[in-house]
Amino acid sequence: MTQKGLPLIFSAPSGTGKTTLREKLKQELPDIEFSVSHTTRPPRANEKDGVDYYFISKEAFLNMIDCDEFLEWAQIHDHYYGTSRTTTEKILEMGKDLILELDVQGVESLRALKYQGVYIFILPPSMQELEKRLTGRGTESGEQVKKRLRVGEQEISKSHLYDYRVTNTNIDETVDTILAIIRAEKNRVDRYHTDCPEIRKLIESEPS
Amino acid sequence: MTQKGLPLIFSAPSGTGKTTLREKLKQELPDIEFSVSHTTRPPRANEKDGVDYYFISKEAFLNMIDCDEFLEWAQIHDHYYGTSRTTTEKILEMGKDLILELDVQGVESLRALKYQGVYIFILPPSMQELEKRLTGRGTESGEQVKKRLRVGEQEISKSHLYDYRVTNTNIDETVDTILAIIRAEKNRVDRYHTDCPEIRKLIESEPS
Repeated sequence: MTQKGLPLIFSAPSGTGKTTLREKLKQELPDIEFSVSHTTRPPRANEKDGVDYYFISKEAFLNMIDCDEFLEWAQIHDHYYGTSRTTTEKILEMGKDLILELDVQGVESLRALKYQGVYIFILPPSMQELEKRLTGRGTESGEQVKKRLRVGEQEISKSHLYDYRVTNTNIDETVDTILAIIRAEKNRVDRYHTDCPEIRKLIESEPS
Repeated sequence: MTQKGLPLIFSAPSGTGKTTLREKLKQELPDIEFSVSHTTRPPRANEKDGVDYYFISKEAFLNMIDCDEFLEWAQIHDHYYGTSRTTTEKILEMGKDLILELDVQGVESLRALKYQGVYIFILPPSMQELEKRLTGRGTESGEQVKKRLRVGEQEISKSHLYDYRVTNTNIDETVDTILAIIRAEKNRVDRYHTDCPEIRKLIESEPS
């Protein structure tokens, strides 16, 4: 029997370095899958359908809601975002670990469902540094940066919903910490797996 | 304010490679402290007082029990074994991580006290391998080996008391897994520490 994959749920305020982190994790963990969300918002210039998101119509999205097809979904401003339940389950059933990048609202939904996974929140080293990174992008107005900072503050104040908090000061150290978390979690007592039947029998004799 | 050290509680059935593991961890983690237990049993040929154990008289031990000086203690056959509460606390208060090697009975006591720490159980790859290692030592009779195996089986069947189970197949991999566990645990949401007052304030604003 294949052991089920581990769902790793990540959130990071805008400007914390989520995109770089994702790229580095893809390099370090070639076998890990990244969940692709569905959305009704139009793709940005560099975004690809099926890679960044599945870009679908509002009608198709509402239809998926009706069919209970989403593990979690949310309406943010005028657009819908959601994580497909069947796609996610299929990957995990294959024994593959899966990274889900969600916002805090998505995590609140999963926690309410008692969805089993490892929840990791990425923090900036300081709010000043976050502002610097957001301004440095040069893609947003001062007003937009301020708005993102306020949202970031709200998200950080909800980081108690997660299992781990990781400060992204140095990206390589952050990656190492995440690799350590994954390695540790695979040895958690409730996830422990052994191929040795004798030892499995001893472990399974434990009172539940 | 110094952040308190992390207590790491280890158990490993006899023959699992605990001694080698301890030596490797001392090399990898020069700053970590190893708890030294008190015992009334006589030292073995290669054991040093204050290093392997504090070897004390039965009278002194019973006196320490009366003074509630032990975090946990147990009588095994004719001898007493215990972990000093003040020594342990002093190390942790200094911000140093501390490795406590305990038997399953000791862990049961600490769990009953809801003692906060990271509990790690080391497993052999198989019972056959454990027998091979115990026999290979050449220090014990066949009867003694059998007895140790039975005790080992009992211990493994209680490994659900721990947070992590680590199979010691390859000592270097085991050490890496333990280092990963320590790194991960330091990022656990309830242990998270940041020097940034702004972020600390946001985190502390969270509903408890």
